[in-house]
Amino acid sequence: MTLVELCERKEVTENIRIVSRNEGISPEALSEGIACGDIVVPANKNRRLKKIVAVGKGLRTKVNANIGTSPDHFSLEEERDKLQACVRAGADAVMDLSTGGDLRKIRAMVLGESPVCVGTVPIYQCACDTVAAGKGIVQMEPERMFEVIEQQAEEGVDFMTVHCGINKATVEILERHKRLVGVVSRGGSFLVKWIKANGKENPLFEDYDRLLEIARKYDVTLSLGDGFRPGCQKDSNDAAQIAELSVLGDLVLRARKAGVQVMIEGPGHMPLDEIAGHVQLAKKLGHGAPLYLLGPLVTDIAAGYDHITSAIGGAIAAAAGVDFLCYVTPAEHLRLPDAKDVYEGVIASRIAAHAADIVKNVPGARERDMEMSKWRKERNWDKQQEFSLDPEKFAAERKKMPPAEEDVCAMCGKFCAMKDE
Amino acid sequence: MTLVELCERKEVTENIRIVSRNEGISPEALSEGIACGDIVVPANKNRRLKKIVAVGKGLRTKVNANIGTSPDHFSLEEERDKLQACVRAGADAVMDLSTGGDLRKIRAMVLGESPVCVGTVPIYQCACDTVAAGKGIVQMEPERMFEVIEQQAEEGVDFMTVHCGINKATVEILERHKRLVGVVSRGGSFLVKWIKANGKENPLFEDYDRLLEIARKYDVTLSLGDGFRPGCQKDSNDAAQIAELSVLGDLVLRARKAGVQVMIEGPGHMPLDEIAGHVQLAKKLGHGAPLYLLGPLVTDIAAGYDHITSAIGGAIAAAAGVDFLCYVTPAEHLRLPDAKDVYEGVIASRIAAHAADIVKNVPGARERDMEMSKWRKERNWDKQQEFSLDPEKFAAERKKMPPAEEDVCAMCGKFCAMKDE
Repeated sequence: MTLVELCERKEVTENIRIVSRNEGISPEALSEGIACGDIVVPANKNRRLKKIVAVGKGLRTKVNANIGTSPDHFSLEEERDKLQACVRAGADAVMDLSTGGDLRKIRAMVLGESPVCVGTVPIYQCACDTVAAGKGIVQMEPERMFEVIEQQAEEGVDFMTVHCGINKATVEILERHKRLVGVVSRGGSFLVKWIKANGKENPLFEDYDRLLEIARKYDVTLSLGDGFRPGCQKDSNDAAQIAELSVLGDLVLRARKAGVQVMIEGPGHMPLDEIAGHVQLAKKLGHGAPLYLLGPLVTDIAAGYDHITSAIGGAIAAAAGVDFLCYVTPAEHLRLPDAKDVYEGVIASRIAAHAADIVKNVPGARERDMEMSKWRKERNWDKQQEFSLDPEKFAAERKKMPPAEEDVCAMCGKFCAMKDE
Repeated sequence: MTLVELCERKEVTENIRIVSRNEGISPEALSEGIACGDIVVPANKNRRLKKIVAVGKGLRTKVNANIGTSPDHFSLEEERDKLQACVRAGADAVMDLSTGGDLRKIRAMVLGESPVCVGTVPIYQCACDTVAAGKGIVQMEPERMFEVIEQQAEEGVDFMTVHCGINKATVEILERHKRLVGVVSRGGSFLVKWIKANGKENPLFEDYDRLLEIARKYDVTLSLGDGFRPGCQKDSNDAAQIAELSVLGDLVLRARKAGVQVMIEGPGHMPLDEIAGHVQLAKKLGHGAPLYLLGPLVTDIAAGYDHITSAIGGAIAAAAGVDFLCYVTPAEHLRLPDAKDVYEGVIASRIAAHAADIVKNVPGARERDMEMSKWRKERNWDKQQEFSLDPEKFAAERKKMPPAEEDVCAMCGKFCAMKDE
């Protein structure tokens, strides 16, 4: 039985108990959320997670970090460093998006060493294998797509991005409505090319039931990819994006019927005044499925600082109801991130997530800020450090310029506004 | 005659012409905005600005950077480095908030070397002089407050923060409504202490007309300080903050009557769902005066990363109508910022400002993103660099990991989604 089915029968598993305790909600509420599809717990049957989390309505906003190699840069050791940076920075999930080097070996390392749930985009393995065999991406075999998915499910992957909303109909809409930058989803672009070259339907859409069977067997959470996510301010909320989102909403219902956990992915690049409305729409069309957003980036011109651009969009999105933020690192649009970028990316997303949790009234969020502020008022620096988002950074920065008097900081010194009131 | 009076007479000065060209609006529209008080141009009569800007309705959102020494850390050379970092990062204004070392000498350097408008908080000079004379801050002489203001006006300071909204009535409200962290404005805290210790009215409120006379004489823009800005999520939008804001709105009308340019300062720390509403209220109570916000920080726990926290709040605030963002650096709440922090702080605020300008439909904002995205699609890296917010950073980051093929980046390499469509 899958977790959804257990929850439908109101069985309280060990995982439900752990997660409900961490989230500060009752096991019954959590179980109900999973049963109705508002909440997912990405956890493959074949894997034992050290740090299990739930994603969805009423819960703390979670943060995912994408790691992985590229054809131009691949090193198992660097990936291990990046994984460790994710964990140290407090990521709730990691995705291995490798497309360079020995993909199976890297994935085995990530699955073996990650304490948090692991996601993948199986089409990458399929594309890389096809290219390695001297063929073009458009020659990917449908049969291989499913084999790769099943292999990764068996290996223990907890959640998978599958671009099932890219089909002949949505590609046609994409073609009719000119975009400034076109398709920017890597997996999405593979499938658009495949459909156009072969004149056939996307196997992941056409054989969605087969995908659901695999997901059901290993209790893999499906993350319905937004292959048509906008890649710039100009392309946001266009016909193709919304058409794909409608298809995904349909696929959510089918997944639920099959007892499979499912979430929906979102943009991308989007002007900040469009974000809240888009999130509302995605929740509606997606029948309340947990929303998993990349960014969104509120401007296209800040390469080098897109962790900040994404923190702005992510905070607004999460406050509007997004459940899961996929980080963006300072290296985005420029190169593969290193461990330092990964760390900064996770922290920026955690700031966005927490800022949203305050206004979402997530249990414990406001309380933590109050605790921090109480100690700030008391000028108790050890306690401030303890309650800060990144205690190590807090200590290191303060140490760089010690104040003349212990109980203040070097910004105002004896003129500290909090003193002698 | 002050700029306001010239604009009332529909005279188009050289400065009006320069600014209107930079902003992409007509000199007439700019002049009207200044005449009615929706727009200010901080520019002291005694100073020739290399880079003059206007702040207000319909214009590009501007960014200010606070520099200056503290009693615990003061170096003229470091302040020079920080000033240069501000300018390099693209700040539109700087404030010298020095409270340590030779304040006059530092201010002279900033005024002499800054190409952009310079602001101060004159009460700091007054407080430091009083403390240097062996007295307590509560012994500041009212006469000295005005003398210092006039001295700084004569020196060429373009805009000044004056905490005129702190008076007996608003202090009483503050006292009745318990706060978690109390008063966090440094200048504000001086005046609260002064009022409470002396049992007298705040001279800057009581003798506001005298302040207006000085401002008028040198055409100094008054920045009405928010001494009761909230210092944590819990204290935002409380009775004291709103009472002070109401007083400031009143003082805006009096400044306008006197031909003096005026803006209103804002918070601080604030949950993100309160920001847009607060900005609306401040614009209303402030009779449309340009709003100048510090932060706002959308969580209290992110010390070490408050440039990001502030970028989130700043973007939301500016999108809601804020005209002028005061940056926050990564050093906030921990120590005095160094030149690197200053640079990062300015960039983070510029991202927030630009993200807001896109949705404010500021002339040129959307166009720049479209230009950037067009070159991204073309995989023209030189052009992307040119249109990016920080071209130096763009080039440096890309160089760290050169791609195998020139026309992509090392993130996706040959799998670049933008290729071969």
